[in-house]
Amino acid sequence: MSAPSLPDFPFDRKIPTGEDRERLVCRDCGFINYENPKVIVGAVCTWEDKFLLCKRAIPPRMGYWTMPAGYMELHETAEQGAAREAIEEANAHIAIDALLAVYSIPRISQVQLIYRAKLITPEFSPGPESLDVQLVRYDDIPWDSLAFPSVTWSLKHFKEVDGVSSFPPFQVPSGELDRLRESGSRKYDY
Amino acid sequence: MSAPSLPDFPFDRKIPTGEDRERLVCRDCGFINYENPKVIVGAVCTWEDKFLLCKRAIPPRMGYWTMPAGYMELHETAEQGAAREAIEEANAHIAIDALLAVYSIPRISQVQLIYRAKLITPEFSPGPESLDVQLVRYDDIPWDSLAFPSVTWSLKHFKEVDGVSSFPPFQVPSGELDRLRESGSRKYDY
Repeated sequence: MSAPSLPDFPFDRKIPTGEDRERLVCRDCGFINYENPKVIVGAVCTWEDKFLLCKRAIPPRMGYWTMPAGYMELHETAEQGAAREAIEEANAHIAIDALLAVYSIPRISQVQLIYRAKLITPEFSPGPESLDVQLVRYDDIPWDSLAFPSVTWSLKHFKEVDGVSSFPPFQVPSGELDRLRESGSRKYDY
Repeated sequence: MSAPSLPDFPFDRKIPTGEDRERLVCRDCGFINYENPKVIVGAVCTWEDKFLLCKRAIPPRMGYWTMPAGYMELHETAEQGAAREAIEEANAHIAIDALLAVYSIPRISQVQLIYRAKLITPEFSPGPESLDVQLVRYDDIPWDSLAFPSVTWSLKHFKEVDGVSSFPPFQVPSGELDRLRESGSRKYDY
């Protein structure tokens, strides 16, 4: 889920006139290529009392489990992006119900918009980016084999508002990013 | 608020192996420069019963009024970005209270995260991107001179939850984007 870096040509990193921070400026034409945070869109998807989890077929965290989520694409709404990811990763069709969480992760310059959704039918299968897709009960979630901290947060936050129809979206749990950094974990880059 | 386009060199637009849509691929080194939606962060900021509005000193919509808002930068949270914009555009220090709205605007590939905030002190002045900054009562808002549709939506949505502490964020009002397109308005590119 880490963003690509630009090649070191033809851009120089410098502060353009009238700006307050370094930008990527083309040394030939002066064009400024603004780098901004990326949006991740995803959804905790359920069928009855079970959660849809996908085993990642690609790095990072290949072999670990996640809800369907990925980079938001141009010219789609966040909800359309979350529904697209469920199709791409799990061949699952979902109905979005609420915005569960907005997780800002400044170290990797991501904003994750995670929705709450129901499967429209209990049909699903691994897409090209998944090794396996399963519906699992909350008590059977493989907590130690989840791909990213935000997968854990999302599933726990889902549980906190289970049955609640109207609520403000959750944020990154207080102290979590400091805790992850202090634990020295580099596996997620959070 | 429109995103920059990349120069037409050294990138070609083509579908990389294993992907399903065109990307910008460097014709020299094969690097893929992913283009993704941009996040706008902003806040409806109040002092007592008045709203902080900034008169834009820069295009687009120079001379029109907006709440403080702008592109989210790398390595900040959405809330930090909204607070930064209030400082940059209005020299105003704010305390964020709630996520008021998440507006997806697919035509211009933006996700706008608009917060509800209070001024910490009633001190403010125009930053370099503002011609003027004012505190105005709701009934005195210059509706015909607002810079973007999302400024109008944000102020109206604020009013709908005035005094409500906990609520889900608003979305683009139903039918608004169709209405803007049908009206033939190109001035905002929504």
